[in-house]
Amino acid sequence: MTPQLSRRGFIGTGALGIAGAGLVAGKDVQTATAIPLESPLSIAEVPTPALLLDLDAFEANLERMARHLAAKKIGMRPHAKTHKCPLIARRQIDAGAIGICTAKVSEAEVMVDAGITDVLITSPVVTHDKIERVIVLAQRAPGLEIVVDQSQGVRDLAQAAKAAGVTQRVLIDLDTGTRRTGIPPGAPALALLEELLRHPTLRFDGLQAYAGHVMHVSGFEPRKARSLDSLARCLETKSLFEQAGHRVPVFTGGGTGTFDIDCDVPGMTDLQVGSYIFMDTQYRSIGDRDSDIFDTFAPSLFVLTTAISQPSDGLITVDAGFKAIANEPATPPQFLEFPELRYHYGGDEHGIVQFPDERRPLRLGDKAKLIVSHCDPTVNLYDVYYPYRNGRVEELWPVAARGRSQ
Amino acid sequence: MTPQLSRRGFIGTGALGIAGAGLVAGKDVQTATAIPLESPLSIAEVPTPALLLDLDAFEANLERMARHLAAKKIGMRPHAKTHKCPLIARRQIDAGAIGICTAKVSEAEVMVDAGITDVLITSPVVTHDKIERVIVLAQRAPGLEIVVDQSQGVRDLAQAAKAAGVTQRVLIDLDTGTRRTGIPPGAPALALLEELLRHPTLRFDGLQAYAGHVMHVSGFEPRKARSLDSLARCLETKSLFEQAGHRVPVFTGGGTGTFDIDCDVPGMTDLQVGSYIFMDTQYRSIGDRDSDIFDTFAPSLFVLTTAISQPSDGLITVDAGFKAIANEPATPPQFLEFPELRYHYGGDEHGIVQFPDERRPLRLGDKAKLIVSHCDPTVNLYDVYYPYRNGRVEELWPVAARGRSQ
Repeated sequence: MTPQLSRRGFIGTGALGIAGAGLVAGKDVQTATAIPLESPLSIAEVPTPALLLDLDAFEANLERMARHLAAKKIGMRPHAKTHKCPLIARRQIDAGAIGICTAKVSEAEVMVDAGITDVLITSPVVTHDKIERVIVLAQRAPGLEIVVDQSQGVRDLAQAAKAAGVTQRVLIDLDTGTRRTGIPPGAPALALLEELLRHPTLRFDGLQAYAGHVMHVSGFEPRKARSLDSLARCLETKSLFEQAGHRVPVFTGGGTGTFDIDCDVPGMTDLQVGSYIFMDTQYRSIGDRDSDIFDTFAPSLFVLTTAISQPSDGLITVDAGFKAIANEPATPPQFLEFPELRYHYGGDEHGIVQFPDERRPLRLGDKAKLIVSHCDPTVNLYDVYYPYRNGRVEELWPVAARGRSQ
Repeated sequence: MTPQLSRRGFIGTGALGIAGAGLVAGKDVQTATAIPLESPLSIAEVPTPALLLDLDAFEANLERMARHLAAKKIGMRPHAKTHKCPLIARRQIDAGAIGICTAKVSEAEVMVDAGITDVLITSPVVTHDKIERVIVLAQRAPGLEIVVDQSQGVRDLAQAAKAAGVTQRVLIDLDTGTRRTGIPPGAPALALLEELLRHPTLRFDGLQAYAGHVMHVSGFEPRKARSLDSLARCLETKSLFEQAGHRVPVFTGGGTGTFDIDCDVPGMTDLQVGSYIFMDTQYRSIGDRDSDIFDTFAPSLFVLTTAISQPSDGLITVDAGFKAIANEPATPPQFLEFPELRYHYGGDEHGIVQFPDERRPLRLGDKAKLIVSHCDPTVNLYDVYYPYRNGRVEELWPVAARGRSQ
């Protein structure tokens, strides 16, 4: 029982009464493919607020991570919950990814629909409707894997796979200390494995140990200590499984925050890096190996906003608020070109920008790029990316899995 | 130059391999109309996270506000930025609204496309593309009004109206002290009026005085004092205009937080109430005339979520995080049926729920309704509402203006 609106992109004619609108009007397009513009837009012509993607920075990030993990002989399994865009998932696979992650079943469905079939669903499901969707999806995507973290889920998944006459690939999700999902490492995990192995319709592929609580620990050394500590008990579980005679082909985890920590952990097979392609002020604030700012990867994702009102000389108001940039109060958005300006959320529709001195780099009608607070939930607010190079947008990239949190 | 994706609802077949899926498959539908379900869903069958609407509570709120304002002889001009749904706007007009508000031009376009033509755009625009869109839209919607708050905007709007051979209706937006948009009351506003009146292609309809900074002031009496104070200077501006010989037909402002304060202010013509139809924990926390909880209007909007993991006995994890409920840290979501449980955001995809004692009202696989922190940006995360009565969902209501922040 799964009503779903599969949004198909449709270039409307509503706004096309305006002379010069450079779009393919009335053309029905798949959300998994780029939407060509009849004539390119300059950034100044993009209606705001809008999600911009700097292709040069994005591609440099893609390549930097791919090279880093290849050199470490660690698999790259990027998390598509960050971008929700099959076009970007395809780029990651072309750059050497062994597959992608999605957080939810509906997100995986979008990726499989777009031909990306090596998908790991990183969050467990427990209800019958979701379990059935996984099994249905796996019949189109033999590479589909999902995590399990408790008995009931194992039994229900096994039963659904049996009813469909298929074998379902699964990983056991370990609680790394995040206390969000996962079974405790050690004996409870081994008991779950033994239960799992009694079901011939399930195939055990390995372990997931994602330490969500570690990714944003400030400072490289404290983060390293926390990550190694979290992984240690999970790796002991891997040894426990192996001592009991079970192969553990996959040991997956890690993220952008630990990309150059977890890659050196013996036993780790692949990293679930997500935000590295875009970056955001939250990740920048944690620092990296060399600096107080985590700038190994450059910001490539921005919300373009326009100054629309000036209630007093020391302030200017822009057209991007909570509905344009997801709220992460500890690390507000920052202007790429004007780091001295302070952005404050001004409600759902606006931001209020403070000038620290007499300079006025932003005037009414000006557009400017904001590095967002938190990239994943911000991307989830938009239907399309405006990718640009040399200041020109040639096509739009659909956020095909936008809103797919089910 | 206004590329827009007008999302047309499309009931996909991706999830319909499952026996019993009760949907009209493959049927292209307009987003402004309800999407019928082939067979009704019980709430337990709704895939989570999902946006639920309790129709009884919603209709009671609609009627309560309509009766209240009618009794006060004050117009109701509900803000559609809360619901982004033409079906709900239509209900508000049927209940006596004189028109609706939208925050942005693209939101107004969706409403006009759906046949709702008395629309006030409550935020100024300054760029040529947006000004042209307003003028184009007004030719289909003679009731369309927009606010102005500075000279350049007045001149550009007048020029665009002249080029199109139309007269554009405008309100002057006053800064009530929010320091977000609006011109200062008094002499600056009068100077702007005089400039406006020199343009025969603009028609001055009145004043907007929306005190955004007052709506969430805690406690009825402090909120009343702040609201009356904010409005006083704006009402002096109205007198100033009238003394200078200018009629001020409209004096609009107010919101859900001041619905029973501003209605008693002489000179006020209509209130821009928005959140009253849904309510949220942020508004509930401010109290009302009689109580520490603002419960004159009942919560009607919920995010339905499922418990999917239980990392330890004192906690349970649900499938709704930042992507399902907009983050408003001061007033977290609350379970409608289990007020004793504490919801904590557990990242983009999850919430972590704390049990305060040995009772376990929520178990793996259970679904429960969360009153959201902040209704407007939460609605903006979803493509559809699941409206229900007596526990049954018969149709889906598209959030047709979702993502329309331009």
